[in-house]
Amino acid sequence: MRALEGQKRVTIENVSPQIDCGKYPIKRTINESVNVVADIFVDGHDQIKATLVFRKITKGSPKWQKTPMRFVGNDRWEGSFTPDAEGHYEYSIEAWVDHFSTWQHGLEKKYEAKQDIGVELLQGIEFFETALENAPRGARKSLQQARDLLKSNSHEAKSVSFALSEGVSSMMAPFYDRDKVSQYKLLPLKVERKLALFSAWYEFFPRSTSDEEGRHGTFKDCERILPEIAEMGFDIVYLPPIHPIGTSNRKGLNNATTANEGDPGSPWAIGGKEGGHKAIHPELGDFDDFASLVQKAEELGLHIALDFAIQCSPDHPYIKAHPDWFKWRPDGTIQYAENPPKKYQDVLPVNFETEDWENLWKELKSIVDFWIKKGVRVFRVDNPHTKPFKFWEWMIREVHDKNPDIIFLAEAFTRPRVMERLAKVGFNQSYTYFTWRNSKEEFQTYLTELTKTPVREYFRPNFWPNTPDILPISLEEKGEAHFLIRLSLAATLSSNYGIYGPLFELGLNKAYPGKEEYIDSEKYEIKNWDWDRQTKIKTLITKLNRIRKENPALQTTWNIEFQETDNPELICYSKIDRENDNKILVVVSLDGEYTQSGWIKVPLGEFGLNESEPFVLHDLISGERYSWKGLWNFVELRPKEMPVHLFRLETL
Amino acid sequence: MRALEGQKRVTIENVSPQIDCGKYPIKRTINESVNVVADIFVDGHDQIKATLVFRKITKGSPKWQKTPMRFVGNDRWEGSFTPDAEGHYEYSIEAWVDHFSTWQHGLEKKYEAKQDIGVELLQGIEFFETALENAPRGARKSLQQARDLLKSNSHEAKSVSFALSEGVSSMMAPFYDRDKVSQYKLLPLKVERKLALFSAWYEFFPRSTSDEEGRHGTFKDCERILPEIAEMGFDIVYLPPIHPIGTSNRKGLNNATTANEGDPGSPWAIGGKEGGHKAIHPELGDFDDFASLVQKAEELGLHIALDFAIQCSPDHPYIKAHPDWFKWRPDGTIQYAENPPKKYQDVLPVNFETEDWENLWKELKSIVDFWIKKGVRVFRVDNPHTKPFKFWEWMIREVHDKNPDIIFLAEAFTRPRVMERLAKVGFNQSYTYFTWRNSKEEFQTYLTELTKTPVREYFRPNFWPNTPDILPISLEEKGEAHFLIRLSLAATLSSNYGIYGPLFELGLNKAYPGKEEYIDSEKYEIKNWDWDRQTKIKTLITKLNRIRKENPALQTTWNIEFQETDNPELICYSKIDRENDNKILVVVSLDGEYTQSGWIKVPLGEFGLNESEPFVLHDLISGERYSWKGLWNFVELRPKEMPVHLFRLETL
Repeated sequence: MRALEGQKRVTIENVSPQIDCGKYPIKRTINESVNVVADIFVDGHDQIKATLVFRKITKGSPKWQKTPMRFVGNDRWEGSFTPDAEGHYEYSIEAWVDHFSTWQHGLEKKYEAKQDIGVELLQGIEFFETALENAPRGARKSLQQARDLLKSNSHEAKSVSFALSEGVSSMMAPFYDRDKVSQYKLLPLKVERKLALFSAWYEFFPRSTSDEEGRHGTFKDCERILPEIAEMGFDIVYLPPIHPIGTSNRKGLNNATTANEGDPGSPWAIGGKEGGHKAIHPELGDFDDFASLVQKAEELGLHIALDFAIQCSPDHPYIKAHPDWFKWRPDGTIQYAENPPKKYQDVLPVNFETEDWENLWKELKSIVDFWIKKGVRVFRVDNPHTKPFKFWEWMIREVHDKNPDIIFLAEAFTRPRVMERLAKVGFNQSYTYFTWRNSKEEFQTYLTELTKTPVREYFRPNFWPNTPDILPISLEEKGEAHFLIRLSLAATLSSNYGIYGPLFELGLNKAYPGKEEYIDSEKYEIKNWDWDRQTKIKTLITKLNRIRKENPALQTTWNIEFQETDNPELICYSKIDRENDNKILVVVSLDGEYTQSGWIKVPLGEFGLNESEPFVLHDLISGERYSWKGLWNFVELRPKEMPVHLFRLETL
Repeated sequence: MRALEGQKRVTIENVSPQIDCGKYPIKRTINESVNVVADIFVDGHDQIKATLVFRKITKGSPKWQKTPMRFVGNDRWEGSFTPDAEGHYEYSIEAWVDHFSTWQHGLEKKYEAKQDIGVELLQGIEFFETALENAPRGARKSLQQARDLLKSNSHEAKSVSFALSEGVSSMMAPFYDRDKVSQYKLLPLKVERKLALFSAWYEFFPRSTSDEEGRHGTFKDCERILPEIAEMGFDIVYLPPIHPIGTSNRKGLNNATTANEGDPGSPWAIGGKEGGHKAIHPELGDFDDFASLVQKAEELGLHIALDFAIQCSPDHPYIKAHPDWFKWRPDGTIQYAENPPKKYQDVLPVNFETEDWENLWKELKSIVDFWIKKGVRVFRVDNPHTKPFKFWEWMIREVHDKNPDIIFLAEAFTRPRVMERLAKVGFNQSYTYFTWRNSKEEFQTYLTELTKTPVREYFRPNFWPNTPDILPISLEEKGEAHFLIRLSLAATLSSNYGIYGPLFELGLNKAYPGKEEYIDSEKYEIKNWDWDRQTKIKTLITKLNRIRKENPALQTTWNIEFQETDNPELICYSKIDRENDNKILVVVSLDGEYTQSGWIKVPLGEFGLNESEPFVLHDLISGERYSWKGLWNFVELRPKEMPVHLFRLETL
């Protein structure tokens, strides 16, 4: 038993948030607050105090910052703090018996019960005397005055009211016995850049950007496209792999097992005679072109995101240099990717069970480091759930230690525990099941799970209506209105969202029926898209991205509150940013074919409204203003016009 | 990074049960099973295996016992084990990638898809070869046969069906790479004697046992009473403090601040010139008498429980010997117990904040050790919530390390977190809010909280209808039927229960109206009870205790399942012990005045019954047999006769 351990009487338990007993950090972005609750109590009837302590972990031993906790009831306490810089933090709780307020409490009760308080006043004098012994020079005068007032014993009522005053409480607050403070274990917090929570992604294939039919697009062509993407208001431009593509077992058009002469192959079959993950596919350009693209993007306020796909074509240089990083079969052939009975012969998985795993890990991390040096700050990671969690935990921590602003998006569409785990071990953003949620109830259940359970502490959703791998049933062979619906939902339910373009804004949706796969996918061929065509979808994208940037309430996912409607096809939710008095109400019709109308319940209380006075909602998409009154109000949405209202409450 | 750490690919998380991240042990009694669930998964598509491991902590390094876990779904696994001895255990989970079953899985899929499996069979041969290298002599022959069959390559279908067989799976199960096994942290388990979960307590004042009006009862008198208590079927006889009672500030009758000549004082004002906590109040007898009482109890199958009340009368020897264990006020007087504005001048609290706390702790523990040496195995602890939790944690652990069979019952009627904490730090049983629960909904909510939440892992309820401090509204000035109701509920809802007698079985209930306090409480005076009077309450006590002993389903609290009734005054619950095929259904009318009838829903499924065949319920109280059929059946309870049915399902 340690010297004073037995005298630390206060219990601190059930502290939340914490992930897996503090094994993994909770996550915040800069200026996002951390609200901590705990059960804190002591034996007996003594009064206690509790403080939330936190600090950024830096070299040296930075000072703890402290903020008092408030008693809520039933032994529950709460407090909060707001980290203001990127990096690793730790936080904890300190609590102690507060003998002075215990004394105040007893004095008050006895005085009220008209009992003798002579001894209590003597005890009060002792408190002030002891404080005086430990007080800094500046505090002594007040303490002496306090002591003298109690000593003078001239006017009991005056002494009591003085002893119980706010002023005396604050004056005595610093004088508690620090040896006897109970401290909860340290809990980790990781603070990331705002972009980790608020971002709009645009994915496109750089090879499909040329303006001449059949010519392979280049980084230079991409530069021509970028202003249009910036104009639409995106933050991140994500490129599928830009590395040399293997020729052995190259896939043909529409994923054919054999390629014809001239077929470009899948960019995810990484590595050829020109190099591997640290090389550029020659037809796209060279490193100067890439540097120019990054610079152009930067000028437009865009981040270039690369795809980190740990897999090799049979022609990747690693295979000769590190044969032991791959699995060899008893017949002497190399193990290709498979999930029996499916086979992916153009791709070889890396064997993480190799005895040489430490060098493998280092090499893989060096790929990320390589591209960071080339100016890349954002990575979309391909299928991270088929590589060990411990690798990601190590790799992301190492990268973030030097570059805390790097963002990793986990492209894992798999079981919930696996997706959650990837977020726990460090991924900043995650793909989600949004793509397959369709009914009002599905959205409400899913968003509640994402935002109102402990998952909210570490898993940042990124909502994608489509990807090159997925043309969901909700868009397949459907009209424009369906695109407007999925877009509005993605961009307002989640503060991170992305689209795969230009197919999305062009409303392209030819799929193998029921298979969710694009016909003639550009994964296997070069396309010449009509990049300039203006569409209603494009107009809405541009508006939504602007509205998101202008309305802080749309820059977080955690503040969503669903509101009742009397029509299952109408989904309604509010988002409020109190600090900026920004109050948003979204109504989306889930019906892309027919007009839907109904009554929606306005969160009057949260909006600071009362039942009797009218208020004005400004539809930021149409520009129209609606004067409403009371709890229930009527809406009608015509999909051919606009299937969504995005209201902001007008403030007077 | 440790050598192989990066190769331990399997994740084990969300393991339950565990208390405060494994800081406190879960509790079981001997032969109570521990059901463990966890999320267990790996990256990619490999098959995994998981094992629950456990061992009793003893000197040396006892071997781990292992039991396989089963896959439930959605990455959830479960397993269970049953500890068979008292003491401290630890348990954990091990999980690993099972390459052999991954191979089997792939072989099966490919074979079904009619793909070439030549390479797979070669891989199979490799598996058997590698296993052969590590196999003990006894296992080699089968492995060679397996290898040779695959090598012969004569009959593919035969090879496949052999390779996928149960037999081959078991044969290969031991051959996995132990270096790459993931292990969860060790979790603590404390296994206690059965009495900790199944006990009937009887509290009485030894000084009220004499058969001559006004004479102070003695231990010898108690011996005369014991057979009657044993006859009623109790296990534990709990005596309020038996130590010398102080004379300074002694309380008079009915808690008067001053005692009259001859008033005996409260037994909780411990300590006088005759000694303190290690002495016996002279009027009760001496140590020989006490030894004789303990022996007599033992012969009757009863345990004597003492009251451990850490407080001193102003005459306690500690005050002179250890003045620093008490709080002294600025006027030179000693601090008596108070909770302003309430005062308890006959009792001085020990000051756990003394600088000499370590000696204080040791002395207090020595009191318990002292009485253990005198044959006491059970302690009821008075107001443990006003003493530091850390003291209890230390004291109980120290005592249990030498005497794991000692039982401590926490007499804390306070806030939920505080009561839970006392159970976490080691108390074997706890008083509860049962005394103040009255409606069907209150009972159902409370029992659900106690038995279906994590509290169930460490908090063992003990239900008391009355105590010397509490004559609840539910009994105050009420008729006999109310006693039968509270008794039946206490004895069947909870496997631990107790009564304060003989007032309970005599149906005595004179209280200060609304105050829940007995008028003329024997806390302050000597009583001469009519110990011999037979009452209906006494008859029911005797029956219930016998029924509890004969029916294992009533020997645990955790198996309760509430059943629907169509009358809020009728509460119904089932308790099943599957191992002994013991199925109990209890129906209690909560109305002690009027007849109540209604329909109750029988848990046919749990009882292994179907809707169409009749079954027989045997009322173990009345002895009557009822032939029922179907889901809903009718009952009618007349409180003046018997307000409870305690049915056992008749087995054919």
